[in-house]
Amino acid sequence: MEIHLSERSTAAGSSVIRDLLRHAAVPGMISLAGGLPAAELFPIERIAKASDAVLGSLGSHALQYSLTEGIPELREWLAAQPEIAVRAGRSVAIVTGSQQALDLLARVLVDPGDSIVVEDPCYLGALQAFRGAQPKLHGIAVDRDGMRVDLLAEQLAAGLRPRFCYVNPSFQNPTGAVLSAARRQQLVDLADEYGFLIIEDDPYRELRFTDDVVAPLAVLGDRVVRIGTVSKTLAPGLRVGWVSGPDEVINSLVRAKQAADLHTGTFDQYLAFELLSDSEWFSGHLRSVRDYYHHRAGVLVAAVKRHLGESVSFETPSGGMFVWVAMPAGTDTEELLQRTLPK
Amino acid sequence: MEIHLSERSTAAGSSVIRDLLRHAAVPGMISLAGGLPAAELFPIERIAKASDAVLGSLGSHALQYSLTEGIPELREWLAAQPEIAVRAGRSVAIVTGSQQALDLLARVLVDPGDSIVVEDPCYLGALQAFRGAQPKLHGIAVDRDGMRVDLLAEQLAAGLRPRFCYVNPSFQNPTGAVLSAARRQQLVDLADEYGFLIIEDDPYRELRFTDDVVAPLAVLGDRVVRIGTVSKTLAPGLRVGWVSGPDEVINSLVRAKQAADLHTGTFDQYLAFELLSDSEWFSGHLRSVRDYYHHRAGVLVAAVKRHLGESVSFETPSGGMFVWVAMPAGTDTEELLQRTLPK
Repeated sequence: MEIHLSERSTAAGSSVIRDLLRHAAVPGMISLAGGLPAAELFPIERIAKASDAVLGSLGSHALQYSLTEGIPELREWLAAQPEIAVRAGRSVAIVTGSQQALDLLARVLVDPGDSIVVEDPCYLGALQAFRGAQPKLHGIAVDRDGMRVDLLAEQLAAGLRPRFCYVNPSFQNPTGAVLSAARRQQLVDLADEYGFLIIEDDPYRELRFTDDVVAPLAVLGDRVVRIGTVSKTLAPGLRVGWVSGPDEVINSLVRAKQAADLHTGTFDQYLAFELLSDSEWFSGHLRSVRDYYHHRAGVLVAAVKRHLGESVSFETPSGGMFVWVAMPAGTDTEELLQRTLPK
Repeated sequence: MEIHLSERSTAAGSSVIRDLLRHAAVPGMISLAGGLPAAELFPIERIAKASDAVLGSLGSHALQYSLTEGIPELREWLAAQPEIAVRAGRSVAIVTGSQQALDLLARVLVDPGDSIVVEDPCYLGALQAFRGAQPKLHGIAVDRDGMRVDLLAEQLAAGLRPRFCYVNPSFQNPTGAVLSAARRQQLVDLADEYGFLIIEDDPYRELRFTDDVVAPLAVLGDRVVRIGTVSKTLAPGLRVGWVSGPDEVINSLVRAKQAADLHTGTFDQYLAFELLSDSEWFSGHLRSVRDYYHHRAGVLVAAVKRHLGESVSFETPSGGMFVWVAMPAGTDTEELLQRTLPK
């Protein structure tokens, strides 16, 4: 049987993340490939308690269809957070994990052939989400202070007119870099000057190992769409994320979301709201999460030093989940991957 | 601030369903507009029990990232159902509600300008999902036996070459019509002859009031993609649906889904699996659900007869959630809607 597939479907290409999740699911596998949270941190008992509370108090309301933009309780809680309520009248919508925000933003902002700017290297899931919209991708190198905004400025001066610039500013996936305060300001200024949007995808911000904290880009400028999630702080299996930004963008995103999945799981949203809004519990939980990843990063860095020694180079991370190890020139990392997989 | 929106975003148009859900959320409102399940049927206690069982036995595994195609337990259970395991090697994937299947199928099967066939009138959510792919829509009239497949045959003979034909074959949204066995066979034959796919979206099939049952189209032919959901039998707030069909289609859909939301909520999938696979409980629950909607349909039909009498015409439904009432010629139903809303 011959079946015609769309050009967009063909453009989507291979599925590295899917392979990555499949490898990670092999029993006994310690996968260092993706932003896979430590399962031992998931607050199982607190979620069980929240499940009883939600079903007990809200009953069928927590299981019914709900508004496309998200349940009012969670949206109101989010709108009161300083990093979201950064501008009066900033809209917020709930999405089915932050991945959905990336997909929907590409759909509402990009026509085939439009230019967009991404980090190089970039979070693979973002590239996959964006490719469906058939954009022209412009990668800008990342160093230890994040995207080289000076290189972007050169390309803009030379005529590049992107629809948006995508950044993962805190403990970037995959390099672990933090975009410096100076570069954040410069990027926001460029967005205003050239009229593009910034997509600030910030899932790792809460996983900082020290008290050092840089202001989100959304605090610095109007043309920023900010994405958050419970995946790295509570549990990714709930698929609850959010997106805030200019009204016009969020309204279009909500219309596209309605066609895409009507709304994010009602029960999952209430569970997330219960845990996030229990501020005393949540702040204690976050402390444990930070301490645990800090400890794990130390173990990983020590192991890399011990086993790979002088032959590789990397930065010690100050938060998040990633250590980006540069192998000696000429190393075939594809072949190396095959050797790490069980036969 | 001027923001450029994509052509696809503009093509998506207005959001009738979103308005519909908003009106339905008004306290005291009895909305007859959409396929909104009766909340009093949601098995709250059974779900609470399943939540305890899932978190107790699987723990963090039920809250972690999971495979894009769905959890193996639910996929295997589905693959053993006669209406899904209709052909050897038929793939099945889990989606974030059946709405997501419609959106993803349009994305992987349709290029801008391609023709697709839909029912007239058609489920509004399907139209919204399809419009994002910018197809040329061909509506085929629906009568009491479902889509007029004879009219489709005429258009095919005259040169129409659609990518797919979308049908809601059981107790159609919005007319309540059941596509007759003869028309199902004719449609499957046409799909084979002209090389298009059939998308069989069948959320209401289980809500039949009698023992009369017509075979799904997927049983009759190879070129059928069949979509199911727990939204009308368990609870829509879980956002768990599934799609089965030819390997090539399902594989492409899974790649697109990975970019769209990585995977459907892990916890929600385990809850759905617990309830569906408890066959004794589930069959008893289904009986109650059918009896309840049968009773409600009787009340609604009696009320329409009593209050609207001879001026309107309609068919008494044999299942599902819809009574399609034809108003006298010249009635402004938009204006009528405004009069039913609270001031």
